[in-house]
Amino acid sequence: MTDSTSTKPMRQRMEEYVNNLQEHIVTTFEKLDPDAPPFKRDSWIRTQGGSGRSCVFACPTGDEAGTKSHQSILEKAGVNISVVHGVLPPAAIRQMRADHTSMPLPDRPEGLPFFAAGISLVIHPRNPHAPTCHANYRYFEITEPVNDNTTSPKILAWWFGGGADLTPSYLYESDAKHFHTSIKNACDKHGTELYSSFKKWCDEYFLIQHRNETRGIGGLFFDDLNSGPHQRLSSDSGIKRPVTPDEVFAFVKEVGDSFTSSYIPILEARHTTPYTEHHRRWQLIRRGRYVEFNLIYDRGTKFGLMTPGARTESILMSLPETARWEYMSELGTEEGTEEAKLVQVLKEPRSWV
Amino acid sequence: MTDSTSTKPMRQRMEEYVNNLQEHIVTTFEKLDPDAPPFKRDSWIRTQGGSGRSCVFACPTGDEAGTKSHQSILEKAGVNISVVHGVLPPAAIRQMRADHTSMPLPDRPEGLPFFAAGISLVIHPRNPHAPTCHANYRYFEITEPVNDNTTSPKILAWWFGGGADLTPSYLYESDAKHFHTSIKNACDKHGTELYSSFKKWCDEYFLIQHRNETRGIGGLFFDDLNSGPHQRLSSDSGIKRPVTPDEVFAFVKEVGDSFTSSYIPILEARHTTPYTEHHRRWQLIRRGRYVEFNLIYDRGTKFGLMTPGARTESILMSLPETARWEYMSELGTEEGTEEAKLVQVLKEPRSWV
Repeated sequence: MTDSTSTKPMRQRMEEYVNNLQEHIVTTFEKLDPDAPPFKRDSWIRTQGGSGRSCVFACPTGDEAGTKSHQSILEKAGVNISVVHGVLPPAAIRQMRADHTSMPLPDRPEGLPFFAAGISLVIHPRNPHAPTCHANYRYFEITEPVNDNTTSPKILAWWFGGGADLTPSYLYESDAKHFHTSIKNACDKHGTELYSSFKKWCDEYFLIQHRNETRGIGGLFFDDLNSGPHQRLSSDSGIKRPVTPDEVFAFVKEVGDSFTSSYIPILEARHTTPYTEHHRRWQLIRRGRYVEFNLIYDRGTKFGLMTPGARTESILMSLPETARWEYMSELGTEEGTEEAKLVQVLKEPRSWV
Repeated sequence: MTDSTSTKPMRQRMEEYVNNLQEHIVTTFEKLDPDAPPFKRDSWIRTQGGSGRSCVFACPTGDEAGTKSHQSILEKAGVNISVVHGVLPPAAIRQMRADHTSMPLPDRPEGLPFFAAGISLVIHPRNPHAPTCHANYRYFEITEPVNDNTTSPKILAWWFGGGADLTPSYLYESDAKHFHTSIKNACDKHGTELYSSFKKWCDEYFLIQHRNETRGIGGLFFDDLNSGPHQRLSSDSGIKRPVTPDEVFAFVKEVGDSFTSSYIPILEARHTTPYTEHHRRWQLIRRGRYVEFNLIYDRGTKFGLMTPGARTESILMSLPETARWEYMSELGTEEGTEEAKLVQVLKEPRSWV
């Protein structure tokens, strides 16, 4: 019996999956740069229910310009998992119903139990030619209240969400193509319009509205994926898509598993590219934009920070080690430069495959 | 006839005031550091009505560690004024009524004309022992629509708002006392409870909720100050407070004028203090917290960025040149250190005078 048809509850299968994926991703990065310090593994308990493990890489050099000859490949990175549960009050249920159509009505004053398991990772390499990469996969469940711990509670609503996206400071079209092709291949095994729908969603989601530019060159973004109709997918039953819990989980695992093969070859190709202070300066400005998106628009970050008992350090591990803001910087505005070439695709997202 | 009893419309008096204050503050900083490049003066026009002038200091050194022996006193600074007008749609009126009790009902589908004039400044010195300082003073008016440009429109609602606050990386109690005393002296000429009420409001406003620490060591914060009752001021008519437009304007000018004497002596005392990479690192972490506050909580920034036609570069000039995020940094957590001494007062705001 393979895991994709397991009789175990989905919450347990997802928990095992994100545990294994975290370990696989972290050890992959550690093998890539054996001279760098290992990721710092940090387990935590949520007093309101659940736990998590943050694996964070940092290698402060005391040399902020980052131009030393011997450097770690990564500058800052976090690969976090969390498996939490508790009770969603009616107000939270009401708010979540906007994005999750299968969510029950908030008609029980005592709220409803929830369960959430997910992995979230952000990799900021040191070299300005190597792109930042983010990925996140999560499973969410709302159940009937149960008094008896031995019984599996009845699931009232469930969905998966996630995605992966690339944020370069300098555009290498071959990298963009490799990243998107890798994700598309993973998607195409599970449905014919998954890649095109969720690629578009990604471009829409990662928009820095006040700059009218996207955070990066996109990838995949999806939410609220379950057996029901989906706002971004055709309701035509002749078009293949994952429907059952097993099928949706198999799709999520496929894209989750594709992370290393989509990103590591890019990192391997770029981390030794020579760079100057000019490249570093632009990278830090781009990291400033990353901070702007995450703190102003990112739903996960906002939601996380507003949640009582949230672990701020884990949520904000997505922020780069350093970021830079220049008033009316000329970088990125001068036509024909490598910086302007990137800004161009951020202002007009392209098809890469 | 002094300006405080001028017959000119208040909008014109405030516009002249912020113009003069901007020039005074910018030239004061330029005289303080004659070897540094001048502020870059940048006038702009708002297509929907009005204009502004940004005066911004930047002196990129290409040396991010900032430990060179010859350095400009400031690292990044902006002193901006804007004088804008237009029409507030009913939805915006409705939203503003929450904070401004004198605001008319949003019962005209065509909205109502508004006028706003203000000065906003943020000074980030280079030396980690010299605190960042922010100040902002603004006048807002809602009027009857007029078709005839020669007539002064009837004012339906008006208020002043503003304040000033100090954000050190290292706590010098004498600096905190000087800054607060200077502001208190300015307040006390105009009312007996202005300083205590608005100092408290400042501590409440500049709270980084997800860190449970304030952005800095406070100062003054007020809004919605006009002739009507005020939520933060006693309604006892025996307690002196500014009431008429002339009186409120005189108070705002007094605190606005006190900016240079409240801050410049601190900057003069600290900008030559020797510092190490350790001090710089902590300063950059504190600047990261400044970014968190401004992007997540600051009403002016949020409101500004969401406004169509807003000038993003002027709004985000408040951000530091560089900021830093470390996962679970030990800085600030070790009892007895200078860093922990600062964190202590950010977690428990103190009385300084």
